[in-house]
Amino acid sequence: MSTWSEAGPRTVEQHAAAVAALLPPTGIETVPLAEASGRVLAEDLTAGVALPPFDNSAMDGYAVRAAELAGASEDAPREFPVAADVPAGRTDVPALEPGTVARIMTGAPVPEGADAIVPVERTDAGTERVRIGAAPEPGAFVRRAGEDTTAGAVLLTAGTVLGAPQIGLASAVGRPVLPVRRRPHVLVLSTGSELVAPGDPLEPGQIYESNGTMLAVAVREAGATAEQLSFVPDDVERFRAVLADRVSDGVDLVITSGGVSAGAYEVVKDAMTGHGVEFGKVAMQPGGPQGCGRLELGGATVAVATLPGNPVSALVSFEVFVRPALRAAMGHPAPGRPVVTARLAGELASPAGKRQFRRGVLDAATGTVGEIGSTGSHLIAALARADCLIDLSAETTSVADGQPVAVWLLEA
Amino acid sequence: MSTWSEAGPRTVEQHAAAVAALLPPTGIETVPLAEASGRVLAEDLTAGVALPPFDNSAMDGYAVRAAELAGASEDAPREFPVAADVPAGRTDVPALEPGTVARIMTGAPVPEGADAIVPVERTDAGTERVRIGAAPEPGAFVRRAGEDTTAGAVLLTAGTVLGAPQIGLASAVGRPVLPVRRRPHVLVLSTGSELVAPGDPLEPGQIYESNGTMLAVAVREAGATAEQLSFVPDDVERFRAVLADRVSDGVDLVITSGGVSAGAYEVVKDAMTGHGVEFGKVAMQPGGPQGCGRLELGGATVAVATLPGNPVSALVSFEVFVRPALRAAMGHPAPGRPVVTARLAGELASPAGKRQFRRGVLDAATGTVGEIGSTGSHLIAALARADCLIDLSAETTSVADGQPVAVWLLEA
Repeated sequence: MSTWSEAGPRTVEQHAAAVAALLPPTGIETVPLAEASGRVLAEDLTAGVALPPFDNSAMDGYAVRAAELAGASEDAPREFPVAADVPAGRTDVPALEPGTVARIMTGAPVPEGADAIVPVERTDAGTERVRIGAAPEPGAFVRRAGEDTTAGAVLLTAGTVLGAPQIGLASAVGRPVLPVRRRPHVLVLSTGSELVAPGDPLEPGQIYESNGTMLAVAVREAGATAEQLSFVPDDVERFRAVLADRVSDGVDLVITSGGVSAGAYEVVKDAMTGHGVEFGKVAMQPGGPQGCGRLELGGATVAVATLPGNPVSALVSFEVFVRPALRAAMGHPAPGRPVVTARLAGELASPAGKRQFRRGVLDAATGTVGEIGSTGSHLIAALARADCLIDLSAETTSVADGQPVAVWLLEA
Repeated sequence: MSTWSEAGPRTVEQHAAAVAALLPPTGIETVPLAEASGRVLAEDLTAGVALPPFDNSAMDGYAVRAAELAGASEDAPREFPVAADVPAGRTDVPALEPGTVARIMTGAPVPEGADAIVPVERTDAGTERVRIGAAPEPGAFVRRAGEDTTAGAVLLTAGTVLGAPQIGLASAVGRPVLPVRRRPHVLVLSTGSELVAPGDPLEPGQIYESNGTMLAVAVREAGATAEQLSFVPDDVERFRAVLADRVSDGVDLVITSGGVSAGAYEVVKDAMTGHGVEFGKVAMQPGGPQGCGRLELGGATVAVATLPGNPVSALVSFEVFVRPALRAAMGHPAPGRPVVTARLAGELASPAGKRQFRRGVLDAATGTVGEIGSTGSHLIAALARADCLIDLSAETTSVADGQPVAVWLLEA
C-alpha cells in the first residue's frame, strides 16, 4: 500500500472521508429537556400518553348534551341548571346528569355524558342556572382524546434535531429527559513559538494567537465541546508529552493548526509521523497541506486532524473536513453547510486541478455572490466579513460574471 | 385614550411594536473571546496592530536580495552563504548582509535588507551554503506588514454577530475580550392547576406541563437567558406574590402562558389588569388573546408579555412578538426569522381579517411548502414536525395550489 505522499494529492472528498472515518457515531446519553436544545435525538420518541390525554373543552362555556338543545336558538333559548363547575385541572369531574349542564373552562375535561360545548358568548353566562341560545352539533368544541397523537405512536424519529417545539412535545407526553447523541470532545492545539496571547505585548517577529481560539469556537458552534490547550512551543518531545498528558478516553479528536508544511521545525509532523498519522497534500486552496490518523501515544490512540497554520486555511479546512465529521458523529441529518447556487458578481480565475474555496458575500435579494478579499490565506480580516464560501471545483479554471457558482452558507 | 379592548383588535404589527417597546437595547458587557460566540458586537472593533504586524515569509525558503539573483536559473544557479536561520517567532533577526541569504520559515520575519523569498523547492536546501536556481521579482513571497489590515482600521462594526472568524480576527489583533450587548434575562411562567411535571403520574383531567419548558428553550435559542418558574396555581394572590418575590432589576421580561382568555379563573389577567398590563385581541390565528405592559409590583415595574396557553398559540406568539423583540434588544441586525417565498402545495383557506400562521414543511429543492397538521392550536405533535410557518396576510382568504406564500424559516 503506497503512502499518501507517494500516491499524490488526495481529492477533497477522499480526505473528508478519511477524517470522517476517524469519528464513529458517539454514544447515547440522557439529558434533561432544558439541555436538549440543538442535540440530535438518538432513539425514536414515542408518546407515553395520548394528546390530548382526555376529551377536553376547546372553549370557555358549558358542557351539554347536544340532543337536549335541538331547535334552540338565540330567539328560543333553553334554560338549564348548572350542575357543576369544571375548571382546567379538576380531577373529580362528576358525570353530567340528563337535564343539566356544567360550566367548563378551556382545557378542562368534558364530563361523562356531555357531548358538546357551547361557548359562553352564546349564553347568559349564568352560574346557578344558564340560558343557552344555540343548538350545537354533537362534538362541537370538544377536543377528542388522542386527536393530536395516540399513546404509543412514534412522534419524532431518531436523528431529529431538537429545538423548542420538539422539546415542548416531549414534555407534553410526559418525558422529563431525552436520549441524545453525546457531543464529541475536541482538544484544540495551536503550535508555534511565535504565538503570543492577546493582551500581552508583542515583540517584533511575534503574532497574536488566533487559530486556537477561533477553532475552539468553531468546534462549539458545530455542537461539540472544545478544550483549548495553551501554546505548545515548537519542541517535539514537549509536544508529545503535553498530548500524552491530556489525551484520555474522553477525547474524541485532537485538532492542531500549523506545523505541517514542507519546512524545518514542523513540530506536528515531526511528532506524529510514524506514529499513526499520515501527512500529504489535498488538491484544494487554501488548505493544501493536511494530515490525519490515529496517533499512538504509549498504549492509547487518539484521532487527530492536522490543519494548516494560516488562519484562513485553518478555518476553511475545519469547515470542509472537521465540521461535517463532528456533526455526522453526533447523528446530525445534515452535517454539511447549506449549499445554494448564486450568480457570481465579477470574475474569478482558479488553478486547474485544485478545488478552491473563496471567501464571499452573498446578496440573497439578488441571488448574487461576490468575492471578498483575495486568495491570500493569511487574510483573516476579509474572512471575518465573509458570510459564505464560493466553492470552485477542481475542473474550474475561470468563472465569468453572472455565471452560477456553488456557495456554502456560513451562519454566524 | 381608549383602551385596547375598546379600540378593537390590534394588528400583528401593532402588537409586535408594543412588545418591542418594552425591551430597550440592553447594556454593554465585556466577555472573553471564548464566550463571544453568537453575541452582537456593541462597539466597532479597531485593529490594535497591523496584520501582518511585520513583513513575513509566505513560504519555507530563503530570504534574498532579489537584485543579487538577476539572471539566475535552474541551469545557472548562484551559491550564497546562509548567514542566518530564521524560524517563525524569532525576535532578534539580524539584517541581511549583501552577498548572503537567510534560511526562513513560513510566517518568520523577513530580515532587514532582504526583499524577496525563494521557496526551498527552487534550491538545494543547503544549511551552510545554498544553491539557488531562480531569479525572484522583488517582493516575491513576502507578505507585507499591514496587507490584511493597518493598525487603527475598523475591522468589524457595532452590530456584527460574532462567530468563529470574527473572534479569530479579534484574537489576531490582540483583543482578549470584546464588548457585546448583554443577553436579556427572561422569567418564564406557565400557569394552570391542571399542569403536572413530566415524569410524575397523570390524574384524569391533568396534562403535562410543556409551555414553560418549551418557551424557556425558545428564549435561550433566541440568545437570551431564561429562568423557568415552577407551576403557579390559578390563585391570583399567590401568583403576584411569586412574581414580586422573583422580579428584581435583573429581569428584563416576564413571559406567561395561559390565563388570558375570556373565561373565569384567568389568573394572569386577574393579577395584572389595572396594574400596568393591557389585555386584548390581536387579529391573528393562532394567538388571538394577548397582553403586554409594564407590571407594577410594589414600587418596581417589570415588562410582561402574556401568551395564550395552547402550545401552538404560545410558540407562534413567541415567534411573532417576543423573539424579534429579544433579538432587537440584543442589537441583532436581523431580529426576525428569515422569510422566503415558496409555492404552496395544496390549498389553504384563511379567515378574512386575521393573519394566519400555519405550520409547514418546506421542500427547498422544489421551492414548495405544504401544511402539516391543521389549524388546531393544541396540535403540538404537528408543530414539532414543522420546519416553517406559512404566513397568510389578514387580507388572504384562500390560496390556490402552486401560488406563492411567505414562509418563516424555523431552524432547530
